[in-house]
Amino acid sequence: MNPADYKDLNTSPRILLGPGPSMVHPRVLRAMAQPLVGHLDPEFLKVMNETQELLRYVFQTQNPLTIPISGTGSAGMEAALCNFIEPGDKALIGVNGYFGERMVEIAGRYGAQVDRLDRPWGAVFAPDEIEDALRDKGYKLAAFVHAETSTGALQPHVAEIAAACHRHGALLVLDTVTSLGGVPLKIDEWDVDIAYSGSQKCLSCPPGLAPITVGARARDLLRSRKTKVANWYLDLSLVEKYWGSERTYHHTAPITMNYALREGLRIVAEEGLEARFARHRANAELLWAGLEELDLPPFVPLAHRNVTLTTCQLAPGMDDPTFRRRLLDEYNIEISGGFGPLKGKIFRIGLMGFSSRRENVALLLTAMRQLMLR
Amino acid sequence: MNPADYKDLNTSPRILLGPGPSMVHPRVLRAMAQPLVGHLDPEFLKVMNETQELLRYVFQTQNPLTIPISGTGSAGMEAALCNFIEPGDKALIGVNGYFGERMVEIAGRYGAQVDRLDRPWGAVFAPDEIEDALRDKGYKLAAFVHAETSTGALQPHVAEIAAACHRHGALLVLDTVTSLGGVPLKIDEWDVDIAYSGSQKCLSCPPGLAPITVGARARDLLRSRKTKVANWYLDLSLVEKYWGSERTYHHTAPITMNYALREGLRIVAEEGLEARFARHRANAELLWAGLEELDLPPFVPLAHRNVTLTTCQLAPGMDDPTFRRRLLDEYNIEISGGFGPLKGKIFRIGLMGFSSRRENVALLLTAMRQLMLR
Repeated sequence: MNPADYKDLNTSPRILLGPGPSMVHPRVLRAMAQPLVGHLDPEFLKVMNETQELLRYVFQTQNPLTIPISGTGSAGMEAALCNFIEPGDKALIGVNGYFGERMVEIAGRYGAQVDRLDRPWGAVFAPDEIEDALRDKGYKLAAFVHAETSTGALQPHVAEIAAACHRHGALLVLDTVTSLGGVPLKIDEWDVDIAYSGSQKCLSCPPGLAPITVGARARDLLRSRKTKVANWYLDLSLVEKYWGSERTYHHTAPITMNYALREGLRIVAEEGLEARFARHRANAELLWAGLEELDLPPFVPLAHRNVTLTTCQLAPGMDDPTFRRRLLDEYNIEISGGFGPLKGKIFRIGLMGFSSRRENVALLLTAMRQLMLR
Repeated sequence: MNPADYKDLNTSPRILLGPGPSMVHPRVLRAMAQPLVGHLDPEFLKVMNETQELLRYVFQTQNPLTIPISGTGSAGMEAALCNFIEPGDKALIGVNGYFGERMVEIAGRYGAQVDRLDRPWGAVFAPDEIEDALRDKGYKLAAFVHAETSTGALQPHVAEIAAACHRHGALLVLDTVTSLGGVPLKIDEWDVDIAYSGSQKCLSCPPGLAPITVGARARDLLRSRKTKVANWYLDLSLVEKYWGSERTYHHTAPITMNYALREGLRIVAEEGLEARFARHRANAELLWAGLEELDLPPFVPLAHRNVTLTTCQLAPGMDDPTFRRRLLDEYNIEISGGFGPLKGKIFRIGLMGFSSRRENVALLLTAMRQLMLR
């Protein structure tokens, strides 16, 4: 061990336009430099309360159980499933991309009998077909992805899907990792039972926290479980005692990450949700127009194209990893490729939170044009 | 929602001398202000490699599977148990404080048949009694806490305990949350199979990551599991593919927290483990002498007293919450009380990592003396 082998950290000033993490807002970095306080310090309890209030605004909900899970978005997904599944429960999961696939995997691990509703990667679901799938099956839970990060598709008609779920006695779990704070999302108005997200997409924070909100139906179900949740760390019945009025110690909250989230949410509130959604849409439309000029056709039809994450097809003869490596090395720009069935076929370009800026779109399109000409 | 209700974060400059989190080293805060890069960026892969090398130094191990889990210390505990337990497996867990209790709870949730080895809070285990408990029972795993954060006891004879476990075919899981980087800990020399820790104790980082190291025996067992780990987020067979040469995406690593951990570990390496252990011991001895002068008797006998976390009994008539609240409000100093059977009976005073400094001991003793005189 020679400590001199380990140099000062000196990362490059990347422009993060991939599917996440997106760029951290400078004010968030500043908030993270605040002195640490203890996880039961009255000052931290105030940070927790304010973070919950701000999260409720961003989720557009009054749900008391609205908190950040102490892990990345994937931990949010796991919390949203494992707390509401008991071994043998039936679940319906929509699979039109990688994250639907992952929900199937996780739900299965907790003993759910999972039925899949499959659609091609990039497609979305119609409320009617979901209602047909729900009929007479006795599902306890149905789960769909609002914005599929692997495909760039945005699931419309969430309110209709929620209504269909409730007509058939199922809770609706919604993955909002790539949508929260970037596109309209109305948990209460749409009557979504459980939704989770990540700090590192449209909220402009580093990865490390997963906001989750749990409605009354789901909370009742949590309280009437017959078995303990196998997962102790993500057991919401324990976690909510720390975030609720009891303040019972469960685990040491990631203090600095919570400073970050509070600041990221405060920035959302200052901008206002409507203005924020309009900004995300305007910059995405600029990007879409530019990609068409470059003859890189959109992968997802306009009707259900997501503004926070754009996917486009590659030009003939384009080498995906080489092209992206040159963007990174020569322009400090990160975008991402496809994976699974879309590997080598699409680019994934995120314009989320602080990354969603006109100058980033202009630079990316210029850099891509220059690389395509050479 | 009125954004003006949410002010700039302006936390007080606390002196954190509780059981954790301890104070963040200023260099760690600076490292966290570095621009974010993507979780598959070549620059981040280098950060990951270096973090693993530095973790191996601090754990004193060559184990390839030595990584930070993307959650707090509790997630480390859960990862250390859930990956090595299959439903029906027999486990022996030493309970001499709160964290042993928690291991019983977690192991049970994953279907282990748990036998407890109970000792009073503050006591430690003798290798002989552990060997007696292991004999002819066919335990797959035995778990003990190296430094019990709830009591201030340090478990000695870890190498003998590991040998006893191996003679009887059990893996040894060791909780090193409060010991890693503060007291001698030799994973390879002692032949500990699985150990986990937290970033927010002796490593001077914010809470949010849980270093874990897994030896060859345990890794073999991981690979020969018959069932999937119920916990997807903490499934080491998936996580190790991201941290290993395959770099397969599992979840988005908390980039900024990993910047922090690398810097915290680099500081440990620069100081050197032996010098660091000597500093922790010297400052603890100063504290112990001062507490005796204040007639606050030690709770744990010298023979197994932990230097990173000191516990002392309260003086007659002292009101625990009021005293600690005054330390916080009047001196900005956080210490902690006891909980469970020790509630209202002890103070818990941490001198860990950047918090372990002579000036902090001097100030704390002075503040306590002044409050006791008034």
